Amino acid sequence: MSASEKTGVTAPAGFSAAATTAGIKPSGKPDLALVVNHGPRFDAAAVTTRNKVVASPVKVTRDAMTTGSLAAVVFNSGNANACNGRQGDVDAVEMQSLAAQSIGVAPEDVAVCSTGLIGELMPMDKVRAGIETLGGQLGDNGHEAAVAILTTDTVEKQALVERDGWSIGGMAKGVGMMAPSLATMLVCLTTDADVSAGELDQVLKEASKSTFNTLDIDGATSTNDTVILMASGASGVQPDKSEFAGAIGEICAFLADQLQADAEGVTKRVAVTVEGTADDEQALNAARTIGRDNLFKCAMFGSDPNWGRVLAAVGMADAEMDPDNISVYFNGQPVCEGSTGAPGAREVDLSGIDVDVRVDLGTGGPGTATVRTTDLSYAYVEINSEYST
Amino acid sequence: MSASEKTGVTAPAGFSAAATTAGIKPSGKPDLALVVNHGPRFDAAAVTTRNKVVASPVKVTRDAMTTGSLAAVVFNSGNANACNGRQGDVDAVEMQSLAAQSIGVAPEDVAVCSTGLIGELMPMDKVRAGIETLGGQLGDNGHEAAVAILTTDTVEKQALVERDGWSIGGMAKGVGMMAPSLATMLVCLTTDADVSAGELDQVLKEASKSTFNTLDIDGATSTNDTVILMASGASGVQPDKSEFAGAIGEICAFLADQLQADAEGVTKRVAVTVEGTADDEQALNAARTIGRDNLFKCAMFGSDPNWGRVLAAVGMADAEMDPDNISVYFNGQPVCEGSTGAPGAREVDLSGIDVDVRVDLGTGGPGTATVRTTDLSYAYVEINSEYST
Repeated sequence: MSASEKTGVTAPAGFSAAATTAGIKPSGKPDLALVVNHGPRFDAAAVTTRNKVVASPVKVTRDAMTTGSLAAVVFNSGNANACNGRQGDVDAVEMQSLAAQSIGVAPEDVAVCSTGLIGELMPMDKVRAGIETLGGQLGDNGHEAAVAILTTDTVEKQALVERDGWSIGGMAKGVGMMAPSLATMLVCLTTDADVSAGELDQVLKEASKSTFNTLDIDGATSTNDTVILMASGASGVQPDKSEFAGAIGEICAFLADQLQADAEGVTKRVAVTVEGTADDEQALNAARTIGRDNLFKCAMFGSDPNWGRVLAAVGMADAEMDPDNISVYFNGQPVCEGSTGAPGAREVDLSGIDVDVRVDLGTGGPGTATVRTTDLSYAYVEINSEYST
Repeated sequence: MSASEKTGVTAPAGFSAAATTAGIKPSGKPDLALVVNHGPRFDAAAVTTRNKVVASPVKVTRDAMTTGSLAAVVFNSGNANACNGRQGDVDAVEMQSLAAQSIGVAPEDVAVCSTGLIGELMPMDKVRAGIETLGGQLGDNGHEAAVAILTTDTVEKQALVERDGWSIGGMAKGVGMMAPSLATMLVCLTTDADVSAGELDQVLKEASKSTFNTLDIDGATSTNDTVILMASGASGVQPDKSEFAGAIGEICAFLADQLQADAEGVTKRVAVTVEGTADDEQALNAARTIGRDNLFKCAMFGSDPNWGRVLAAVGMADAEMDPDNISVYFNGQPVCEGSTGAPGAREVDLSGIDVDVRVDLGTGGPGTATVRTTDLSYAYVEINSEYST
């Protein structure tokens, strides 16, 4: 994508970005980026990992978010700066300070996002030299920033949602929020709409719930996951609250789609919808249990309409069900009705990339939820068994 | 193993077995077995799956166990008879009746165990003909029975624990109890000790807890898992209660070892011990969370001492921890101390088949638990993506 096709974090008015190769990654690929909000407003919101083991940059970002405003986010790939003890905290704070200094703002106005290997100290000499160059290279470099945050991703992920006089841009890397693969999920959203920090917070949490938080690639959750939303107000437009929420939901969904499509080793994109539970939470529990079941995921890899694995998996879920009245549909075709195989169930064609699985747990309740996952392939094992060695 | 080397379910006095090829398996391998208790006592106990979706034979076995006595167990491989609706129940009851008839006992004295594909009706013509032949072939055929219950197992699993004047024999198939792979776990234990049904029940539950129930290959749990223990009293010996419990614990551990070693696609046997939690339950939660984490399991496959994945995994566990004071040891060598990498951590040699992982969650509490799991290999994906197709 050429920089002239406006998309990504620098598309909305009031934002610039820079990226560089600091040498953190052994591959020699870009690994440092800065996204700057030039105002006039600096409202911001963030959603961070639920993991109890929290990386140093996430601690710094959480502290920075207490004011509800940000002037910039500094990103690095190639090193997660997680599990590095006191030195990790010191290094994350220094990254924050250096980035703030390079654009002339206070340290507490800068968030820090890191992604890469856990338990390696940041090569701070390289990071210092890299950040120093970023301040002087700010411009319409959303694409370059989107490239610099990638780790095992095979393609950069950008998005733009345009409305009447204002827009939302975004970039992302990784695979999933509550459950990303080793690739931490980092998302940065920018908007020139004039929206308060409180509204940003509310809208971002709501949108994350049905997009990033239901993207469940392998049940793992990174120490570094972060989604940040910054608003410059540069358009001068104060959008209607529901219109803004809709646009944020749209860009989150679009980026989540790109994350799912590029998940490690993916050959199938699988949407698991559960219904017929007492409430949505039970449906979500059940959908996650199916989506995380390795036997089910292997069957998807094999394009195998093995609905028995869906029943065996869901039977362990923390959800009420009628074990004798469960129905399963693959790509809209019934494969199991009344907990028994439907005619032609073994012949259902799952050879396409997208597989839609719908499961009715048979209690007649109104609960429903969808989780998106992927298959479990040889490539997943290959990528994840050879990462740090 | 030749039949003359006494081991397995027919080694204790008072038991005989038979096995045959009924044609349930397309491979033409043995797929039907019967284990008979000739008394004088018929005390028995069983532990069955926790899955809410329960196979028809498990329902039959649960009903049979209400009396606390069994004269026989009929086994088939190649078909799980799960999710077959009302017809599945009818077929399981017929298998029970036919087996009872073939040895002249009441139907309620026979348990039924099935393992194989879910959602295919039992080929009852073949099953009927097969069971008919079993009654006339009873003898010292423990080994043949152990072979006939296998599915994706690569080797039969038998065990014998001998004490002064009495013994316990056993056979097993599959990989794990609370969390077996698609291969349902079936275990049959026989003893000629004179022990009441109540004591059998208590001892079997206790022994399962620390053996089969902490064997966690892939987090999945079968609809058919069953462990049965039958006592003939034929030795005339009433063992001391703690001696008997010790012997049952020993044979369960021995069979669990064999199950772990033969788990689908295994190249590593991994023991994950968690300590430093408030209680054992929290330690077990944490150990299971690590043992089920695909990223951790892929690292094991790659012999990669990537302790960061242990921390990322355990941070999601339902257990109290001090996130800044977690220690991790691989094969006894510290790789992470105070939630930070230990010197030489990346050089720890994990190239052997057995990997010992110890994690201290740093709260100073007395809780501890061990879960045994395996790595996640190409072979696991291969086996499980090509099973039913």
